This record gives sequence, structure tokens and C-alpha cells, in this order.
Amino acid sequence: MSKTARFPAPQDKAESEEGTLFAPRFDADGLLPVVVTSAKTGEVLMLAQMNAEALARTIETGEAHYWSRSRGRLWRKGEESGNSQRVVELRTDCDQDAIWLKVEMEGADAACHTGRRSCFYRAVPLKGAGDVALRFVDAERQFDPEAVYRHPGAAKGTLKSSE
Amino acid sequence: MSKTARFPAPQDKAESEEGTLFAPRFDADGLLPVVVTSAKTGEVLMLAQMNAEALARTIETGEAHYWSRSRGRLWRKGEESGNSQRVVELRTDCDQDAIWLKVEMEGADAACHTGRRSCFYRAVPLKGAGDVALRFVDAERQFDPEAVYRHPGAAKGTLKSSE
Repeated sequence: MSKTARFPAPQDKAESEEGTLFAPRFDADGLLPVVVTSAKTGEVLMLAQMNAEALARTIETGEAHYWSRSRGRLWRKGEESGNSQRVVELRTDCDQDAIWLKVEMEGADAACHTGRRSCFYRAVPLKGAGDVALRFVDAERQFDPEAVYRHPGAAKGTLKSSE
Repeated sequence: MSKTARFPAPQDKAESEEGTLFAPRFDADGLLPVVVTSAKTGEVLMLAQMNAEALARTIETGEAHYWSRSRGRLWRKGEESGNSQRVVELRTDCDQDAIWLKVEMEGADAACHTGRRSCFYRAVPLKGAGDVALRFVDAERQFDPEAVYRHPGAAKGTLKSSE
């Protein structure tokens, strides 16, 4: 079975943009980018990837599953950290090549493997703003990554983001 | 000059995740995915790509610039539609391979080339929800794409999303 056979093949532009058939357009690697936001606060928690199996399992179970490019395997968010994501709403975009997940965190309120609520905990200064260094925002740790991920690499950041 | 030479080379994991040096990690094509949200409502408006030049111009001008893969060129959001994006905040993620832009729309309140506020105007049903077809949500058009984009392909959706 082809990697994406569990979904209809991508349709022409008119159907893809204005139709009601969900026919996601996976990229050459069989992946779709997924924006994950908090259903509670609206903040962007992470940007991840899904292959067809991760997308199908997410739809079937209502629990977020992703494809880890660094580990080359499917993962259910929280399978190691205990901090999983219940899907409140799943949307696709105009040309059906991206996904937006609104989720509720279960466990610690932390989507990032560094222990923070969101992976986006640093702001980049805009010209004219005066500062030149990244500025930490909403960067309090909700858990200790060394305690949660028992293998030595975790706390040193050898895990790819978000798990 | 290399395509990414205007930014420092990516750092090791510890510095990349916990440091204050902005050293974005572009992919093999020299691109970064960019989540764009409304500073006003928090909703996800679009998912786009930036190359180093687009990122540098966005930081310098405070106006969102992207790389169009379909057209193979840099574009300032709104250069054709008139609906541009003023950047309120720019963030990077833990491993500095993604960007989150909070923007205010200028012109029509529509980030999507279909005339809608957001590109994510359809929800995918979760198993058990009863429905099987995509459901339109927040899908009112803010402008008529045929009137805004004067070339015949635009309204038929031959333009890539969001411009």
C-alpha cells in the first residue's frame, strides 16, 4: 500500500480549495506541516510533521500523533513525557498541504521538550527595537527535562523538538 | 554570498535552544516554515516559507516578506492584493528551524488568496463526530479574488496560497 493510500489523491485546485473532500497534499517525503495551538490560550505551541499514518491515527483517536524526522518513526505525543495532546479541532488550509491542530494538553502544560509551554519561547528583535539578542518570553519551565526524559541526551537537547 | 550568509551559522543544540544568538536553521532548500497568526484574534492565518532574504527584509522593515515556492521569488505580502502584514512580534522555536509571526493585517482583513481571513477555513471531522465531509468555518470572503487579482488564473486558484 502506498504511504498515503489511506487518503484520496489530491484534487484539482478548484476542488481542493472550495470542496468538502479531504484530500491532503503530502510533500515529496510524504509529510505535511502541522501548526499546533493551545485551544485554551490560542498560543502556538509547536510546529510538527505528520505522515499519512500519523494523520489517520490522530483523526481516529483524537490524540495527536506525529512523524519524527530525527527518529524516523511515528510517535504519539506524550508517549515518553506523559504530556499528550487531546485534539479539539483539526483544520486544513486552502490547498490542503498544511494542518492546524487546536489541542488541550494533558499532563504537564508543556508541549516543548525543554519543559516549556510552547517551543516558541524566544522573540527575535525587529530593527529599531533597540535590542539585538533573542529575548526570552513565556519561557518558564513546566517540568524538568532531565527528570522526565531518562536518557542522558534528552537534557542536552539531542532530541528533536517537542517530545 | 551564500544564501544564508546574512545570519550566523546554526549553533550546537545547547546554544541553539538556550542561547540568545539568533542563528536560524534553514532547510536543505534554504527555507524556514513560518506560522502566521493574527495579533488581534490569535487565529492561525497561514503557513508560509521564508528564505534568508525574506527573513532579513521582514526584520528590517517590519513588513512580512516570504519566499514563494510556486513562483520561485521573494514577495512582500500584499504587493499585489494590497493586503499587507505589519509584524507585531517575531519568535523562533527551540531548535531555531521555524518562525512564528504575529501580524496585523493592513487593507482587507484577509490573509488568504481566496479572500478569506485565514487559509484554514475548513475543519476535518474527527472519527466519532458524525460528519465525514470538510466543514466550512470562518469562511466568509473579505474580498472578491477575481476583482483583486486581475489575471485570469487567480480566481481559479492557480496561485499558491496566501497571495
